[in-house]
Amino acid sequence: MEKGQLLYEGKAKRLYATDEANVLWVTYKDSATAFNGEKKAEIAGKGTLNNRITSLLFEKLAQAGVPSHFIRQLSDQEQLVKQVEIVPIEVVVRNLSAGSLAKRLGIEEGRVFSEAIAEFYLKDDALGDPLITEDHIRLLDLATADEVETLRHNALKINDVLTGFFKEIGVKLVDFKVEFGRDEAGNILLADEISPDTCRLWDMETNAKLDKDVFRRDLGDLTTVYTDILTRLGGQLT
Amino acid sequence: MEKGQLLYEGKAKRLYATDEANVLWVTYKDSATAFNGEKKAEIAGKGTLNNRITSLLFEKLAQAGVPSHFIRQLSDQEQLVKQVEIVPIEVVVRNLSAGSLAKRLGIEEGRVFSEAIAEFYLKDDALGDPLITEDHIRLLDLATADEVETLRHNALKINDVLTGFFKEIGVKLVDFKVEFGRDEAGNILLADEISPDTCRLWDMETNAKLDKDVFRRDLGDLTTVYTDILTRLGGQLT
Repeated sequence: MEKGQLLYEGKAKRLYATDEANVLWVTYKDSATAFNGEKKAEIAGKGTLNNRITSLLFEKLAQAGVPSHFIRQLSDQEQLVKQVEIVPIEVVVRNLSAGSLAKRLGIEEGRVFSEAIAEFYLKDDALGDPLITEDHIRLLDLATADEVETLRHNALKINDVLTGFFKEIGVKLVDFKVEFGRDEAGNILLADEISPDTCRLWDMETNAKLDKDVFRRDLGDLTTVYTDILTRLGGQLT
Repeated sequence: MEKGQLLYEGKAKRLYATDEANVLWVTYKDSATAFNGEKKAEIAGKGTLNNRITSLLFEKLAQAGVPSHFIRQLSDQEQLVKQVEIVPIEVVVRNLSAGSLAKRLGIEEGRVFSEAIAEFYLKDDALGDPLITEDHIRLLDLATADEVETLRHNALKINDVLTGFFKEIGVKLVDFKVEFGRDEAGNILLADEISPDTCRLWDMETNAKLDKDVFRRDLGDLTTVYTDILTRLGGQLT
């Protein structure tokens, strides 16, 4: 497999073509960003941590029957994925109140919901990734009604699988953001990453934050908590 | 009927008790406010205009089978209504893109939707009346699932009735906000007001704004355009 030209550079990853049709080469960057890119830092080792955690979680999800773009991890900061057309909707699943939801609704952080909720956000940095409804999705022609149902269903299934998985390692899955894409046949596949950058993870005993809020809110050392998550997941830094 | 003590004062209206159980006395104020109260003015005649327009529209809606709190107009600035417990959800129906929706989704104003859309906003000035989803409504226990269905259904019915009614007088109903309440028996009744304060109304020929955007955006004289709407509706200033 040969790495080809750079196709896309995001805040946390670069996507390259390969010599195989519909296969992309992803490299995880060491960049940390928050508040829609307003806060930035380079943190050595972050790319490796998120690549390893994402690879591990996408493998677990595949075993649980959740289809994703993930093919395999290549190296510390690299993985191979199927090429998809990203659906411009960020799907957020929440088990406890935190972050923008707590602010939006004026409720305290940490309230446990009787049922997980799924929210849709328009993936558009210039607009600040606003909350949208299914009517807005239809209006902007972002996805079909069937696709929206699949996004919601798959996101909630991912939540079920990951909640159980994190529970075993003493971590509460508070909320997370996932993205999906369409493959050549139009199948909806989980894409992007699942890592402490895209999840809120609280220690089951202490409620200590083990995710990007450590960086957002200057609560400690990002590398230490991401390494803690990787280690608890059974992964190792080589 | 005797006017009793002041029960509630909002930005545009005062509600008083009466000597009859479950009947309130409403007076429409001459205050104009916009941007969550940041822009304010006193405009002589505005209370009369909105009271007359709301009374007229609520009568039309009653004839079309939409239940509301409206009993009857008492005077220029006063009406009698049934007491309800307001559901803290603002229901917005949109036929064309404008205002906060155009901004949220990054689309131009004036795009015609193939189908009307209904949105829910949390009625909470301190939080800036944020957009909410049905999951948020459940989570905050604002209304039952059946009530949410009734809110949406009634709001879309109101849209059908009013769109036809405004069309006859050469006005496009772009969007509007309605509030609902529960009566003693738990029935959902249309409440609050429907006026150029709560609707976007554009002239069918010229697209001239005939609503509070004239005040919000300093586009002309509020009294002139509200009087135009009242006159077209067949009402008169006494």
